[in-house]
Amino acid sequence: MSSYVPQSAVTVVGLGPMGRALAAAFLAAGVRTTVWNRTPGRDTELIERGALGARTLEEAVAASPLTVVCVVNYDASDALLRPAAVTAALKGRTLVNLSADTPDRARSTGRWAAEHGIPYLDGAIMTPTGVIGTPDGVFLHSGPTELYERHRPVLDALGGTHTHLGEEIGRAAAYDIALLDIFWTAMTGYMHALALARAEGVFARELAPFAKGIGAILPPIFEEAAGEVDDGTFSGEGNPITSAASTMAHVIHASEAHGIEAGVMRAAEGLARRVIARGHGGDGATRMVELLGLGLGHR
Amino acid sequence: MSSYVPQSAVTVVGLGPMGRALAAAFLAAGVRTTVWNRTPGRDTELIERGALGARTLEEAVAASPLTVVCVVNYDASDALLRPAAVTAALKGRTLVNLSADTPDRARSTGRWAAEHGIPYLDGAIMTPTGVIGTPDGVFLHSGPTELYERHRPVLDALGGTHTHLGEEIGRAAAYDIALLDIFWTAMTGYMHALALARAEGVFARELAPFAKGIGAILPPIFEEAAGEVDDGTFSGEGNPITSAASTMAHVIHASEAHGIEAGVMRAAEGLARRVIARGHGGDGATRMVELLGLGLGHR
Repeated sequence: MSSYVPQSAVTVVGLGPMGRALAAAFLAAGVRTTVWNRTPGRDTELIERGALGARTLEEAVAASPLTVVCVVNYDASDALLRPAAVTAALKGRTLVNLSADTPDRARSTGRWAAEHGIPYLDGAIMTPTGVIGTPDGVFLHSGPTELYERHRPVLDALGGTHTHLGEEIGRAAAYDIALLDIFWTAMTGYMHALALARAEGVFARELAPFAKGIGAILPPIFEEAAGEVDDGTFSGEGNPITSAASTMAHVIHASEAHGIEAGVMRAAEGLARRVIARGHGGDGATRMVELLGLGLGHR
Repeated sequence: MSSYVPQSAVTVVGLGPMGRALAAAFLAAGVRTTVWNRTPGRDTELIERGALGARTLEEAVAASPLTVVCVVNYDASDALLRPAAVTAALKGRTLVNLSADTPDRARSTGRWAAEHGIPYLDGAIMTPTGVIGTPDGVFLHSGPTELYERHRPVLDALGGTHTHLGEEIGRAAAYDIALLDIFWTAMTGYMHALALARAEGVFARELAPFAKGIGAILPPIFEEAAGEVDDGTFSGEGNPITSAASTMAHVIHASEAHGIEAGVMRAAEGLARRVIARGHGGDGATRMVELLGLGLGHR
């Protein structure tokens, strides 16, 4: 193993839909790429497009100065990377873990990497597989700035926007989890709205143009709310949380009248009612952030 | 009362923030406008800008061929409109109720109006007060097509986009409630995400640019999902609901590790787990719509 000579610029570990998209983008950008997947056979099409295969994961890791891992979560990446032979092969090479998980898992991986002399960057991919290799991809990174700058030319070959969020290794995962919180809550709300619309005789395709309009008004509202939260102003500005709670009650009532459960909106309304009970009914929904933060240990 | 001669083109009833915005937009467009509010004094500024005041609601209604009502909900509009003197004044004139409530309340108002010979349109305003009178306003209407077309020139004076969704009187409210479902679920998700980000040391203004990016990717995803729901395809397309459930679990874990409750996401994850338990784990989150609709009486 020690005699193995690096022959590619990057190794991609994990060839699920996202891993395959990453490897394909590297190849399309002319980056020599080694690929590996625990289940064999996933590398066939990539090898036909010029990727190098490897018999073992330690061989794959040893083939490049940079290994990018993208598997289902950090249980899966730990299972791949922590066996002694693989850890030894990674020593002195750079590992970038683009798998999704919690900030704590990114930090524990950071500690493990430091203990084993493995230069480590953590990252997150914020966009679907289809846009990898296009200008629309969004990648977040955290870890040592020098390490990020050194590998940036290869990472940039993935296309899209890459942002280094800071040296604290958990930071990319913190952004990732918060953004996924928004995405999946919104998506669940949309699914619920489609069920409610259908119960009212409205087809999904009929509602969709207006639903897209709701999506379109969110970005400026998100920006304004962020300022209120950081500044602690929580202004209702003609849209007090009492009004939001009333609307939420209408949604719950209209849903349950059709036999459609409204657990998500009931939980949301509960937050609004608790803000009102704390005497902030005239303030905006941004007061929910304060309410949710009351359990924080450091406050 | 019977000798009272109409002297304005439209009467606006209810001068909360939205009612005042509607009246101001009519006035700015040169439409002669009568205004009325249950609590006196709210009309002062509008009268300075050219609006006509009225001593009683029945006088206000009799002043115009068209009355637009915008109050907090249909309990409030019923309390204003159903007293005998007001109902009598409305007879043969047109009533447009732009208050927000459930489709059932719109339908019961439609029945009441028909019983009393009041031509009736129901409507919903999908945009904040600040954009009323600008091209960004979004108004939904339902009810008799002929009636809508007759009053459209006056309604168009409010600016923005007006859509007649059909003759069924509850249709505007059905769209409204479904769209508010999306909006308030997404907003609650964003508030939760900001709380989680802050617990991780990330300021709201730091997360906001990326949160805006999430908002921006929703419209095309909404459109694609609508097609899958109407067609019953529910494709996972590289993003199966098992993966969504795993992400939701990460969000819950990361939140609760900071003492931040995750009731909304727990309810969302519950839906995803139930879809998986029904054997659809490889399908997309759109399967949630089917699951939620299982309780529908007419299926």
